[in-house]
Amino acid sequence: MLESEIYDWLKQQRINTPDYRLFGLEEEPDVDFYPVALKIESPKVVHKSEVGAVAVNLENPAQLKKAREDILSNLRLHGIQTDRNDRFLVSRMYAGIELFFGVVSDPVFEKVIVFGAGGTFTELFRDICFIDSEADEGEIECAIAQTKISTLFTKGFRGKKYDLRLIVDFIKKLQQLDVKEMDLNPVILSGDSLTVVDARVLTGTGFASAKIMKYSPGVFTPGRVAIVGVSRHPDKVGYALAKNASGSPDICFVNPHLDMLFEKKVYNSLEELPPVDTAVLAIPAAGIKDTIQKLTDGNVKNIIIITAGFKEVGQDEGFLTKAAETHHLNIIGPNCIGIYADGVNLTFGPGNIRKGNVNLFSQSGAIVAELMDKAASKNIGFENIVSVGNMADIDFADLIHSYGGENPINLYIEGISHGKNLLRAIRKSQSKIKVFKAGNSEVARKAAFSHTGNMAGNYEMFVGLLKSAGARILKDINGLLYPYHFEKILIITNAGGAGTVISDLLPDKLYALSPGEIEKLSEVLPANWSKNNPVDIIGDAGEDRYLKTLQVADNFNADAIYVIVTPQFMTNTEKISRIFTENHFRTKVFPILLGGERMEPAGAWLRNNKVEFFEELTEAVSFL
Amino acid sequence: MLESEIYDWLKQQRINTPDYRLFGLEEEPDVDFYPVALKIESPKVVHKSEVGAVAVNLENPAQLKKAREDILSNLRLHGIQTDRNDRFLVSRMYAGIELFFGVVSDPVFEKVIVFGAGGTFTELFRDICFIDSEADEGEIECAIAQTKISTLFTKGFRGKKYDLRLIVDFIKKLQQLDVKEMDLNPVILSGDSLTVVDARVLTGTGFASAKIMKYSPGVFTPGRVAIVGVSRHPDKVGYALAKNASGSPDICFVNPHLDMLFEKKVYNSLEELPPVDTAVLAIPAAGIKDTIQKLTDGNVKNIIIITAGFKEVGQDEGFLTKAAETHHLNIIGPNCIGIYADGVNLTFGPGNIRKGNVNLFSQSGAIVAELMDKAASKNIGFENIVSVGNMADIDFADLIHSYGGENPINLYIEGISHGKNLLRAIRKSQSKIKVFKAGNSEVARKAAFSHTGNMAGNYEMFVGLLKSAGARILKDINGLLYPYHFEKILIITNAGGAGTVISDLLPDKLYALSPGEIEKLSEVLPANWSKNNPVDIIGDAGEDRYLKTLQVADNFNADAIYVIVTPQFMTNTEKISRIFTENHFRTKVFPILLGGERMEPAGAWLRNNKVEFFEELTEAVSFL
Repeated sequence: MLESEIYDWLKQQRINTPDYRLFGLEEEPDVDFYPVALKIESPKVVHKSEVGAVAVNLENPAQLKKAREDILSNLRLHGIQTDRNDRFLVSRMYAGIELFFGVVSDPVFEKVIVFGAGGTFTELFRDICFIDSEADEGEIECAIAQTKISTLFTKGFRGKKYDLRLIVDFIKKLQQLDVKEMDLNPVILSGDSLTVVDARVLTGTGFASAKIMKYSPGVFTPGRVAIVGVSRHPDKVGYALAKNASGSPDICFVNPHLDMLFEKKVYNSLEELPPVDTAVLAIPAAGIKDTIQKLTDGNVKNIIIITAGFKEVGQDEGFLTKAAETHHLNIIGPNCIGIYADGVNLTFGPGNIRKGNVNLFSQSGAIVAELMDKAASKNIGFENIVSVGNMADIDFADLIHSYGGENPINLYIEGISHGKNLLRAIRKSQSKIKVFKAGNSEVARKAAFSHTGNMAGNYEMFVGLLKSAGARILKDINGLLYPYHFEKILIITNAGGAGTVISDLLPDKLYALSPGEIEKLSEVLPANWSKNNPVDIIGDAGEDRYLKTLQVADNFNADAIYVIVTPQFMTNTEKISRIFTENHFRTKVFPILLGGERMEPAGAWLRNNKVEFFEELTEAVSFL
Repeated sequence: MLESEIYDWLKQQRINTPDYRLFGLEEEPDVDFYPVALKIESPKVVHKSEVGAVAVNLENPAQLKKAREDILSNLRLHGIQTDRNDRFLVSRMYAGIELFFGVVSDPVFEKVIVFGAGGTFTELFRDICFIDSEADEGEIECAIAQTKISTLFTKGFRGKKYDLRLIVDFIKKLQQLDVKEMDLNPVILSGDSLTVVDARVLTGTGFASAKIMKYSPGVFTPGRVAIVGVSRHPDKVGYALAKNASGSPDICFVNPHLDMLFEKKVYNSLEELPPVDTAVLAIPAAGIKDTIQKLTDGNVKNIIIITAGFKEVGQDEGFLTKAAETHHLNIIGPNCIGIYADGVNLTFGPGNIRKGNVNLFSQSGAIVAELMDKAASKNIGFENIVSVGNMADIDFADLIHSYGGENPINLYIEGISHGKNLLRAIRKSQSKIKVFKAGNSEVARKAAFSHTGNMAGNYEMFVGLLKSAGARILKDINGLLYPYHFEKILIITNAGGAGTVISDLLPDKLYALSPGEIEKLSEVLPANWSKNNPVDIIGDAGEDRYLKTLQVADNFNADAIYVIVTPQFMTNTEKISRIFTENHFRTKVFPILLGGERMEPAGAWLRNNKVEFFEELTEAVSFL
């Protein structure tokens, strides 16, 4: 579209554009509004500035006249042949703050709006945010708040505070607009109006995903399970699967060549099997299609495909997607390590899973295995674990949508398709959703590509959209291990330095002590305590001082109390560790044991008594 | 200074300023250069824009005339009484890229130059860097590279690449300029010139430190040591000090009431003592002054003051600084946990120090204690440890300046004085200097203040100046534990996900595999390996595949090889851990064991065999 056409079209969408007039190249331009810009308007000249075909800040007819002559001579200089369809565009200029608005079509998230600081250096400073085309006002505001330019609407700038409403309404118009790609830069914010003064539009059809979000609560209740492809060789996946599941009552094993495994009968064919709700397939890729065919004769609702060798190595897996649709199946995988649900371990990961509150859905099986193993050594329990694999059918959005509980959901994501479904699921979820997104660097994206066959999108866009939709983005993968979320944390420490370091890590989550609370703490603490949070109870603190401080602080309104213990020479760490097993506190209390050898007995005591604790400050903030 | 005076003064410094002319308020301004800006010039009007006393982009005499009338009426409107000393300033306007230059006087770093993107939004985007007034050209360039606007000089912007030389020369002029504070914003970059078009200057004397950097290599060779204030009560600092030092040969104990301690004679007074090189004082604060007086009768060169109760609680410690000067002493502390040097443990921290390559100088005793204890459990050894305490005399700069070795120096800093000395020491050092700076948030700064009595400066300035001077800034405090520095790291992993996550953490440190190297790896790896770095050797990798990959990769030119092992079900982690004890590699190789329970036997094996390894990806990148 030519600039004047864009102006007309935007005007139809009730978007302000400048007054303008068109003139033939031979005509003497003359307008009754100033200052103006003069530009060539021709399909032959796309980058006008580069050939000297733009003049700005023209204040009067004389300047306009001279600018016209300059542009004509520049065009000749660049060897551009004009014809009689070409025109001069004279448009009114506006002074104010330069903003940027854009619309992009993303293969993952489809239509997305971009907003931020405009002008020449938009690309350089990248002070922008991303807004889903389906975002509501609250979500739009949350996105805008992620930019620095949003200061205009909160604190104001140079004495003037601008109306956020203007921006939100403008973005809502862009959400409705039928374009593939569009740059509006700059859009001039002045007083109470926004005027687009430069625009580029690409019409056409953008990316659109056909996948409908699935409601499949059945994936979290495996019911009677058949493990197809069990093995008695300890180095085979089918062995680990059978071993991990063998303790559960409703498990059937299938292998044509075995009779018994882990004291259970092994069915030699699918035909012999009693009706099952869930089938776990650990058989060669070539046999998957037939096996699914046979299973769909029964009542099976979930099929978990452990087997690798599909999309991730360039092989077709479209038949899985189709089978899920045709037979109303929930297919998990392929290329995954399985699921843990309803207390049943249907993974070939570590066998030592404890029941708990953490929901972990992950795109990397190895990460699941690592976190399961870590959880075991930290007494952390899971409600559900799903290794989603290639997501031929069930994806993150479906899982969030189908989960009926209220425990937090933690996601390890490398790259996804159908981003809009994920945003919809996050918006509707009753759970706190936390996300660790791998692949934030160019090189990392390369690694992610070769790993899952999914192209990871732009990290900032991904993170920005999920955040505005209500997810929390984790910077530390270990945060996926925890089901907690705290907003106001009180820190008790025997080391000022450690207090400073953890304050740096959670500056906006420090519980603010009231004067009365400070007074109460002063009653049990030496005169030189810090008088603020972090509560520095001084290096010579023993178990008595720790306990008294905790007892006082337990009556405050912090969400959690972090108790830092460092191995100062007079610190009896073992005695201090007893505080956490011998007392009950109303507030959630987490010891943080910093050090090495000297902290080991205290750590062992807490571990054996199943008290959760941290060994690094970074661990304690990983899930916040 | 008035604007025209600033222009004249800058011109004298060979800095470009706009053509301008001054006119009386009654005079009709008339110039032969356009476009121009018109401004009131009066000591009564400091913020000209806010009272409508600035008009810009005036293109001709008519506009100039009208602007004059508008300004006069605005002044009347704001009730500003003009007098006959007031003037109109008409200055030529320049088009180009807006840059920002500034000079500030900082209490820590004294005169510092600021450079960055200019214009209206300078404060909002803060795309700026800090340059020490003593920085040379290389350092200036390094600082500039920390801004986004530096793209103008590297990649160029919209087809035009600008000359970095211009900026460097301008900054060198500012380094020479005698001002207290100055804002030059904007400075217009156009073609090959820089023109200051708006300036504010504050003359006067800025901060200046009188401290001369000390060369005191003696602090690292304690020689014969007296510990004054030893104790036989295990809960006293004097006990821990005596116990930690008791294994060393040249140690004397002093306490008026003891005869023997740890099978050593205890001297009852300073007078009885043989001549000592170093005295460690763990006596009440009130006795420090007298004790130092008595010690200076002998040959003592180092005095380490463990005792607290000085500056950190508002008590004077100036007499310590003076004593150090008068008697040519090196005083460490007060309020510290001591030092470890020459294999002698003169701290009351953990007793289990191993000799090694790490130099750790820290402002927090508790952090020293924590890191010493952690090091013990990780088989990490130290060359020197200095807990600097309040730094009444010896500070970080003196220590770096006095250290004669070439091992890396790791610093834990909360807040310092005499910043220029620190920069000078870093510049001259033969060692790699790594710094963890605590107190990067407002709240954290508060904690730091109450902890050490030192006001922590602006984090960005601190970090920017140290970085340009040659230090490496660590984001993870655990990085202080390691003496390594790598630029090209090869990663071998049995989990693609973990490879992606670590790539995100060190995107610019990945060793680039050559096609020949990829071919060599392909000879020992399954067909579906990743073909790039991270080298994903696939989840079913056993010890053979790990070893073969390592043997091939050992011939490449990586600085280090990180070998990630995740507990996939077929992974025999114990057997894999044997690789690192049974083979010798030319390249530095670090196992990274990710997981929990299932990794414990492998971890124990490596620990017992004194093989360094990591248990978190973040640990492996903490020192990079």
